[in-house]
Amino acid sequence: MNRDDVTDLIIEAKVRRGISWADVARKVGKSKEWTTAACLGQMTFDEAGARAVMEIFDLPAEAEPWLRTVPYKGSLPTQVPTDPLIYRFYELVSVYGTTFKALIHEEFGDGIMSAIDFRMDLQREADPNGDRVRIEMSGKFLPYKTY
Amino acid sequence: MNRDDVTDLIIEAKVRRGISWADVARKVGKSKEWTTAACLGQMTFDEAGARAVMEIFDLPAEAEPWLRTVPYKGSLPTQVPTDPLIYRFYELVSVYGTTFKALIHEEFGDGIMSAIDFRMDLQREADPNGDRVRIEMSGKFLPYKTY
Amino acid sequence: MNRDDVTDLIIEAKVRRGISWADVARKVGKSKEWTTAACLGQMTFDEAGARAVMEIFDLPAEAEPWLRTVPYKGSLPTQVPTDPLIYRFYELVSVYGTTFKALIHEEFGDGIMSAIDFRMDLQREADPNGDRVRIEMSGKFLPYKTY
Amino acid sequence: MNRDDVTDLIIEAKVRRGISWADVARKVGKSKEWTTAACLGQMTFDEAGARAVMEIFDLPAEAEPWLRTVPYKGSLPTQVPTDPLIYRFYELVSVYGTTFKALIHEEFGDGIMSAIDFRMDLQREADPNGDRVRIEMSGKFLPYKTY
Amino acid sequence: MNRDDVTDLIIEAKVRRGISWADVARKVGKSKEWTTAACLGQMTFDEAGARAVMEIFDLPAEAEPWLRTVPYKGSLPTQVPTDPLIYRFYELVSVYGTTFKALIHEEFGDGIMSAIDFRMDLQREADPNGDRVRIEMSGKFLPYKTY
Amino acid sequence: MNRDDVTDLIIEAKVRRGISWADVARKVGKSKEWTTAACLGQMTFDEAGARAVMEIFDLPAEAEPWLRTVPYKGSLPTQVPTDPLIYRFYELVSVYGTTFKALIHEEFGDGIMSAIDFRMDLQREADPNGDRVRIEMSGKFLPYKTY
Amino acid sequence: MNRDDVTDLIIEAKVRRGISWADVARKVGKSKEWTTAACLGQMTFDEAGARAVMEIFDLPAEAEPWLRTVPYKGSLPTQVPTDPLIYRFYELVSVYGTTFKALIHEEFGDGIMSAIDFRMDLQREADPNGDRVRIEMSGKFLPYKTY
Amino acid sequence: MNRDDVTDLIIEAKVRRGISWADVARKVGKSKEWTTAACLGQMTFDEAGARAVMEIFDLPAEAEPWLRTVPYKGSLPTQVPTDPLIYRFYELVSVYGTTFKALIHEEFGDGIMSAIDFRMDLQREADPNGDRVRIEMSGKFLPYKTY
Amino acid sequence: MNRDDVTDLIIEAKVRRGISWADVARKVGKSKEWTTAACLGQMTFDEAGARAVMEIFDLPAEAEPWLRTVPYKGSLPTQVPTDPLIYRFYELVSVYGTTFKALIHEEFGDGIMSAIDFRMDLQREADPNGDRVRIEMSGKFLPYKTY
Amino acid sequence: MNRDDVTDLIIEAKVRRGISWADVARKVGKSKEWTTAACLGQMTFDEAGARAVMEIFDLPAEAEPWLRTVPYKGSLPTQVPTDPLIYRFYELVSVYGTTFKALIHEEFGDGIMSAIDFRMDLQREADPNGDRVRIEMSGKFLPYKTY
Repeated sequence: MNRDDVTDLIIEAKVRRGISWADVARKVGKSKEWTTAACLGQMTFDEAGARAVMEIFDLPAEAEPWLRTVPYKGSLPTQVPTDPLIYRFYELVSVYGTTFKALIHEEFGDGIMSAIDFRMDLQREADPNGDRVRIEMSGKFLPYKTY
Repeated sequence: MNRDDVTDLIIEAKVRRGISWADVARKVGKSKEWTTAACLGQMTFDEAGARAVMEIFDLPAEAEPWLRTVPYKGSLPTQVPTDPLIYRFYELVSVYGTTFKALIHEEFGDGIMSAIDFRMDLQREADPNGDRVRIEMSGKFLPYKTY
Repeated sequence: MNRDDVTDLIIEAKVRRGISWADVARKVGKSKEWTTAACLGQMTFDEAGARAVMEIFDLPAEAEPWLRTVPYKGSLPTQVPTDPLIYRFYELVSVYGTTFKALIHEEFGDGIMSAIDFRMDLQREADPNGDRVRIEMSGKFLPYKTY
Repeated sequence: MNRDDVTDLIIEAKVRRGISWADVARKVGKSKEWTTAACLGQMTFDEAGARAVMEIFDLPAEAEPWLRTVPYKGSLPTQVPTDPLIYRFYELVSVYGTTFKALIHEEFGDGIMSAIDFRMDLQREADPNGDRVRIEMSGKFLPYKTY
Repeated sequence: MNRDDVTDLIIEAKVRRGISWADVARKVGKSKEWTTAACLGQMTFDEAGARAVMEIFDLPAEAEPWLRTVPYKGSLPTQVPTDPLIYRFYELVSVYGTTFKALIHEEFGDGIMSAIDFRMDLQREADPNGDRVRIEMSGKFLPYKTY
Repeated sequence: MNRDDVTDLIIEAKVRRGISWADVARKVGKSKEWTTAACLGQMTFDEAGARAVMEIFDLPAEAEPWLRTVPYKGSLPTQVPTDPLIYRFYELVSVYGTTFKALIHEEFGDGIMSAIDFRMDLQREADPNGDRVRIEMSGKFLPYKTY
Repeated sequence: MNRDDVTDLIIEAKVRRGISWADVARKVGKSKEWTTAACLGQMTFDEAGARAVMEIFDLPAEAEPWLRTVPYKGSLPTQVPTDPLIYRFYELVSVYGTTFKALIHEEFGDGIMSAIDFRMDLQREADPNGDRVRIEMSGKFLPYKTY
Repeated sequence: MNRDDVTDLIIEAKVRRGISWADVARKVGKSKEWTTAACLGQMTFDEAGARAVMEIFDLPAEAEPWLRTVPYKGSLPTQVPTDPLIYRFYELVSVYGTTFKALIHEEFGDGIMSAIDFRMDLQREADPNGDRVRIEMSGKFLPYKTY
Repeated sequence: MNRDDVTDLIIEAKVRRGISWADVARKVGKSKEWTTAACLGQMTFDEAGARAVMEIFDLPAEAEPWLRTVPYKGSLPTQVPTDPLIYRFYELVSVYGTTFKALIHEEFGDGIMSAIDFRMDLQREADPNGDRVRIEMSGKFLPYKTY
Repeated sequence: MNRDDVTDLIIEAKVRRGISWADVARKVGKSKEWTTAACLGQMTFDEAGARAVMEIFDLPAEAEPWLRTVPYKGSLPTQVPTDPLIYRFYELVSVYGTTFKALIHEEFGDGIMSAIDFRMDLQREADPNGDRVRIEMSGKFLPYKTY
């Protein structure tokens, strides 16, 4: 058993039982964004979180230490994602990548937006022309320093 | 001359004269996000926008129709971007891609967040532990339909 | 069990029993194009559709929630498809891609043809010089908007 | 000078003068789909067609034999296209590729839809929910033969 | 079981029993070139052919419908083949590709040599300096048509 | 100036003057297959051949030693060729590669068909159902030896 | 002119005049590691630094704003570097990558070593068996946080 | 069983039992850097080391000779690593690669830093602004020699 | 069972029993270079060789015909090898490739060194500064011929 | 001007004047193998060597410091070389790579053959069945050390 097996068990249990990610998050006591990423093998649970996940998905005992072990990250099978929903995010990086760069450097100077000290929030935005997906991202600016 | 040449002329003029993207946007009369993307060769200007850009960057006459022609999009030279700032966005897609997918499907069902009917806003978020980059994205949800 | 396993079971059953996609579609009550894509793991069934598919292919009970779960899409094993029939479609994109782009922009301005709000119809076209494959595609035009 | 240079000259002239592809096609006397592909360096003009194109775009004399020379085809700079409009067609191949294969084999047996003995027609389809792009493709079915 | 499994069973049986491809072809009643390609999962058997192959290789009953199902084609594990014998053919395409193109266009005009309406014959050519492999290929010329 | 420049000069002159490869071959005194490959930068001319080519295409003096220098071979810009005519040959390697391997090993044992001690002949094959391209290849069999 | 042109001018001037990176660093007033990276187009100079570099390499006036503009980073032409010296560092990532990961997580928990808040020092280490290259790297640990 | 299986067994046992790499190293009697790399399948144990590892992780008898066999090295599943921690090291090579090259050549002349006659030490560096990861690398300089 | 399985069985038996390649070669009666390549699935054994290998590694009966079947060659899992020892050979091709080409053409004219009619010998070369690996390669020169 | 330009000048002069690499080597006073690699931009000349090369190829003054600057190495335009002569060496690494690894480890233990402390000698080997290319390589064995 490895972390990928644990992720597969979680996904299978979720599909079989029809549990929602929002419910899992509520029981784990974190945001739905962080909790989903963690269940999908991208984040590391603490003891309480691991225990909650073990119970929710009725996982076998040997899964527990894996949930608390830092995983090898990266959730996609190909460099350019084939799934249309995920590809749209890749396209945003492709089309707006130099715009992100230009505007962040204009505001902050040389450096990056951290993808580690980072949080996000994903919500439905009601709209008469069709509801919208609204994502707020917040990442610490990390400046390059001279030395 | 082609659109890439126009983009190069804009970037050279911007570096030489020290014009800010925020200023360009104000003169063009659009958001700084859209204006920057358009100047970097990813969006299409209307007549007034093209005229404003011609003036701001003092472009040669043959640049004008190019600004109003739909460009071949994609702003990055490699599939996996090498620039650290832009890579962090690619990493977000890599690490959180399946999370985006899971949460959007949970909220909306099968479909995608449009990268076309899309807008974004990038701001500085003051923070005592170091200021943060805050990005709000809003894209229309497009459902897959049966037929 | 995951969605790929369900797709394999469907294909195996289809080959073993000699069921036609047109028959499946009739029983599912959708077009043969949508139904085939859905059976091949690219679309999501509703309750009635899933029940029909379960029966037609005599699938085990745990397959049912998978049929109703949004799949990770993308049906091909390589970036450039090796199968001659599928490669011809890739070649059409390669040879006519800039033509599609030029003509759609000429007619509609900047934007795309949606691959989500999309339907198609595939028919035999009788022809004395050899019958032809006729495919009608219809996708909503989505304009890029300024903001 | 080579064919790519001729294509660049045509595109530059078109952008500068604001000629439409539909007009070019009318003067060349072929469909707008074929004419656009030919102008973009994917098809070969006959004598009359080449003469018409020379005039429309006011090309230098040495361009003429290039228009009548079979070009090295393939209009895209990358295996997976980065332009959102063209990518949507690639995505259709990715998502529906196995569906095309399944349905064509069901109707015709082993073989392919020709991408050579092929024609297409691209039209606006008025729709109260937003106009649609309608593409009709027709390609001869070519059976694999035993020998 | 899928078609790849059937191909593996055929290869295993062939190695174990020392059956020659020429013998298989004789029993199937087709050329050795077509028969070998079909056994290796690239062509589709008709009823009589499938029955012959079932017997020759003593395949299990569920293999039979797979032999009669159109396979997903492409017999090589990598884009550039690593096997020296197969690589030599890839090298011929690399070195002589533009020559094939130049000579076929000179003789026939714009179009291609079909790889579908295609047959080939592979023979030993006795030669005092060392015997040679002689391959005759014949593919229908398919012209691009204007429309 | 390098060999690629010489190849470009030859192609430009050929297009401009409408010389046929068959004519070039006749003047060079070799087959049209070898001569075309050599003019396209894949083979090395001897003194007489270089002189003939210099004259036919009216090349500048510094081109001559390049024609007699062994070129860096490989005539295609991408691993998987995008040109439909050339792709068909790549597809033959993909679909029939393991068949070539199986039949050559059956006839000759372990070894390869040489792509160096190799010649080919390309002809039109008249056919009431549409003329065909006929290619005869002959390559020396080179056995792997034990030592 | 763009930043790559400036980098080329710096390298040409350095080779022509035989200036050492250590000297450049002394005049710029930063470490030789940071200064070299900045001259090679990976870091952004402040006003004083840019002035020093302009003088040292006698650059044309339009180079100055480029030195102060954040560059598009990534100094290597291929994903896997071909230069033996640089490849050895890639090999260290390949061979020791999972070791870096294991030991940093053991000491710090889930997170990364920053490549932005990072400094390094490269020295000769005298050794009777042959001198050694000694590199000290120091990067801030950035923990993943739950939210 | 092969070396990858042994590595998997070690990782599973480590996760299950919560053994630290520092402890393993102490028992093996080598540095934690070398020991971790060896346990992760990148180095070769001597007899005593293998015995210690067998005991620590309670491995089955057939694992022992594998621990003493030189492994096929390279610990990462993709050319560009997807895991954020490991990617940061790849980014250092990308951004600082030409800097490493420039400074080592300036100090030592033409040659490389050995990745074989190499050792490293990874420590926590306490820092009031957040602790840092400190890595010291030492590799023998190997000069290219003329001959 | 296929040839890869046989190779795995040989490697497992070799590791478990500590047999040396030199010993295997002695019993097979060929050079250690050829024998090792053959055991690693790159060459074809004759009857006597296969029998010897069966005995040495105590292989199951069904392995024997596989040892005598020509394998699909290519022993490495990636285009650019990750193992440091094997990479060094790839680096030699990268750094000295054009040198091999230049010197062989200077000595022999246009053609190649055969990798089929090829043998090699690998020896320890005692050296006071550290022993050396000495490899002698001998491949037949194959000239390109005109026709 | 950069090192690639110098290499191009050398190659052009060599082709134009018909100088042999053996002659260059004699004048430079090194082996023909090292000298050719250096002229092709892979090695670094000392003062005397650079002066000799300047004279032989009549290079412009600004070429001299480039000859004495360590180049960015790697002489091939693609990961898998397309030139048949160079590909054969790549094929040797592909087919015999694991054999090199097995035999060097058997003789020396864990480590590599240096590609830096390396020399080679390429000779014609007369043979009644056709002359052969004989290459002797000698590289220092570098052991992995524990620490």
